[in-house]
Amino acid sequence: MHYQAPLADIQFILNDVLHAPAQLLALPSFAEVDADLVQQVLDEAGKFVTNQVAPLQEVGDSVGCTFDAGTVTTPPGFKEAYQAFWQAGWPALACAPQDGGQGLPAVLEAVLFEMLSGANHGWTMAPGLLHGAYECIKHHGSEALKAEYLEKVATGEWLATMCLTEPHAGSDLGLVRTKAQPQADGSYRVSGTKIFISGGEHDLTDNIVHLVLARLPDAPAGPKGLSLFLAPKLLPEGGRSAGPSQARPAPPGGSEGHAVPSVGAIRNAVHCERIEEKMGLHGSPTCVMRFDEATAWMIGEPHRGLGAMFVMMNAARLHVGLQGIGLLEAAWQKADAYSKERRQMRAPKAKMGSAPDLISEHPAMRRILSTQRAWIDGGRVLAYRTRPSNSTC
Amino acid sequence: MHYQAPLADIQFILNDVLHAPAQLLALPSFAEVDADLVQQVLDEAGKFVTNQVAPLQEVGDSVGCTFDAGTVTTPPGFKEAYQAFWQAGWPALACAPQDGGQGLPAVLEAVLFEMLSGANHGWTMAPGLLHGAYECIKHHGSEALKAEYLEKVATGEWLATMCLTEPHAGSDLGLVRTKAQPQADGSYRVSGTKIFISGGEHDLTDNIVHLVLARLPDAPAGPKGLSLFLAPKLLPEGGRSAGPSQARPAPPGGSEGHAVPSVGAIRNAVHCERIEEKMGLHGSPTCVMRFDEATAWMIGEPHRGLGAMFVMMNAARLHVGLQGIGLLEAAWQKADAYSKERRQMRAPKAKMGSAPDLISEHPAMRRILSTQRAWIDGGRVLAYRTRPSNSTC
Repeated sequence: MHYQAPLADIQFILNDVLHAPAQLLALPSFAEVDADLVQQVLDEAGKFVTNQVAPLQEVGDSVGCTFDAGTVTTPPGFKEAYQAFWQAGWPALACAPQDGGQGLPAVLEAVLFEMLSGANHGWTMAPGLLHGAYECIKHHGSEALKAEYLEKVATGEWLATMCLTEPHAGSDLGLVRTKAQPQADGSYRVSGTKIFISGGEHDLTDNIVHLVLARLPDAPAGPKGLSLFLAPKLLPEGGRSAGPSQARPAPPGGSEGHAVPSVGAIRNAVHCERIEEKMGLHGSPTCVMRFDEATAWMIGEPHRGLGAMFVMMNAARLHVGLQGIGLLEAAWQKADAYSKERRQMRAPKAKMGSAPDLISEHPAMRRILSTQRAWIDGGRVLAYRTRPSNSTC
Repeated sequence: MHYQAPLADIQFILNDVLHAPAQLLALPSFAEVDADLVQQVLDEAGKFVTNQVAPLQEVGDSVGCTFDAGTVTTPPGFKEAYQAFWQAGWPALACAPQDGGQGLPAVLEAVLFEMLSGANHGWTMAPGLLHGAYECIKHHGSEALKAEYLEKVATGEWLATMCLTEPHAGSDLGLVRTKAQPQADGSYRVSGTKIFISGGEHDLTDNIVHLVLARLPDAPAGPKGLSLFLAPKLLPEGGRSAGPSQARPAPPGGSEGHAVPSVGAIRNAVHCERIEEKMGLHGSPTCVMRFDEATAWMIGEPHRGLGAMFVMMNAARLHVGLQGIGLLEAAWQKADAYSKERRQMRAPKAKMGSAPDLISEHPAMRRILSTQRAWIDGGRVLAYRTRPSNSTC
């Protein structure tokens, strides 16, 4: 049995425990988000998750992603589901309307990603990074970068990655060695190898927006010498020369004072070397990425890259919490269904010598199942209640 | 790096904590087992484990067992290593000399199987069941069965299985449905399906000795209606007709009063339907086995099969404890080696601004590694100290 969107249980927490609709209505940004709208969004989200994403869990696990000479192919059906997902506006749920988003409360995005993670954790890894990339570019990107990338990332037309770890630098990011060389046109050439990059390469979207920690030539050692760069898989028109866009007027002067040209089909020097095992998520390509003088633009200030990256990392951390709740729910659904199908031993209420009982009747099993439920419900209260208000609404 | 036999650590527990050599020497059966002999056996066991079994861990995991039309092929090198293993007498270490065994203390067999499990758990699953099958046949088998099977199982020339679980009957063995129909010649025809059978089919040995729980036609319901049967993969000469052996004089009257003919090449009606996933042990074939009126002989008394099978199960349980210690040791070896290679962050003793330290220098890592060591050492004391004396010596 596939994962089934547990809307009644989720709405019990949202409506009856947290009184979310009344609380949201009281906020100026959400004066039009009434209980009916919340219900409607959750119903549609539940349908999408149950009908389009959950059925791909098995093929994601059994077939998985494959790598061939720098190209990554996701499991059958993954691309079609992702295209339907972004075209229906799901990644943009809690993004600002002026960026192409829907301006709905972030808690609804939390519910959506909890369900997606439970239904198909591997598939969900790729869009799970979008909101963090959106927040990072929105708060720290130049106007030129925002003009080129913000809406694409807000809507999910392009997916994004978070490139921190290197073979010798995991939690100790101060050891990062990837270098960024400034160019005369305001861009940079980034060189180095990153590992464990979720969605580093795939066929879900045409372009992939890499957010990369690297070091400028004059950078001090350690974490205070890191800067953040945006390196797309496909370069804007004009390619590496990165002159002003031909397709639109130069945007009003960004923090870097340079314009980013619009996308073309020129491949940037960003290479996937292989895919890695990551927590058994065969449907999610975890990639070793080599940046070979890749064209990139700085996000935020020199040597202040870690602070900008933490906007993305913190969003990713909140998503990891939602993944946990989603997986708890998925495990509980399987356990609950099995307990109502499997007969074993005699439960206390039965007479001796009768046929074996469903294991759902055994007190020891009821305790286990109830404990699972308590973790799920408690986790939902914590995750939904502490969901930060949309920083952009 | 492969698993390395941790002889110094094991001997510290055996010699310095438990004073095993002196205690063994005091037992009449082991009056000739002095410290030198113990040392020599452990040295040779360590060499075999480190040089012949540990290097096959990786191929066991990556290639695994394959199934094709009822035939199971173990990973490259598994068969050769097993043939070398039994021919060197390792399975027979703690079996009685009159059964083809070496009569050495059971605690040495415990050490051997702890090391084998740490070095290559998948490979070790097959011989791990041998000693239990040996004890079961020795204590409950008829003289005729013992004459045919005891030495083969004691020496490991033939491997053995433990066929309990059915699709609907796991821990609730009273639900077992496999049937045994008595034949005029004293044999039985066994029919039913067993699942999760470790080593149910493979190419490690010519013959496989299945110990099978089944129900006689007049059996009462529940666990008190189970009988135990021995069904070999290859039938003795004479096949299903199972007349008295032509190759040797009939053995003196066994408890069943019938003779079991010696082995020929006639395939019994025991079929492997597929191999299953079991705890990620790809090198161990876990099989669905179908008995289709397979020829078998009863072990022990009618309806008393569970008691006889528990001799084997309890031996298997002791082995599971040793597997746990072996895996702890294998995990510690990897963690310890990595902690002495990986540099990350600054340890308290270092001056600020210096290069990163080995993680083995960090107090938090030292605590984790020391905790692992404590579990291993404590587990060894428990497992070696409580190892029952050889029931057959």
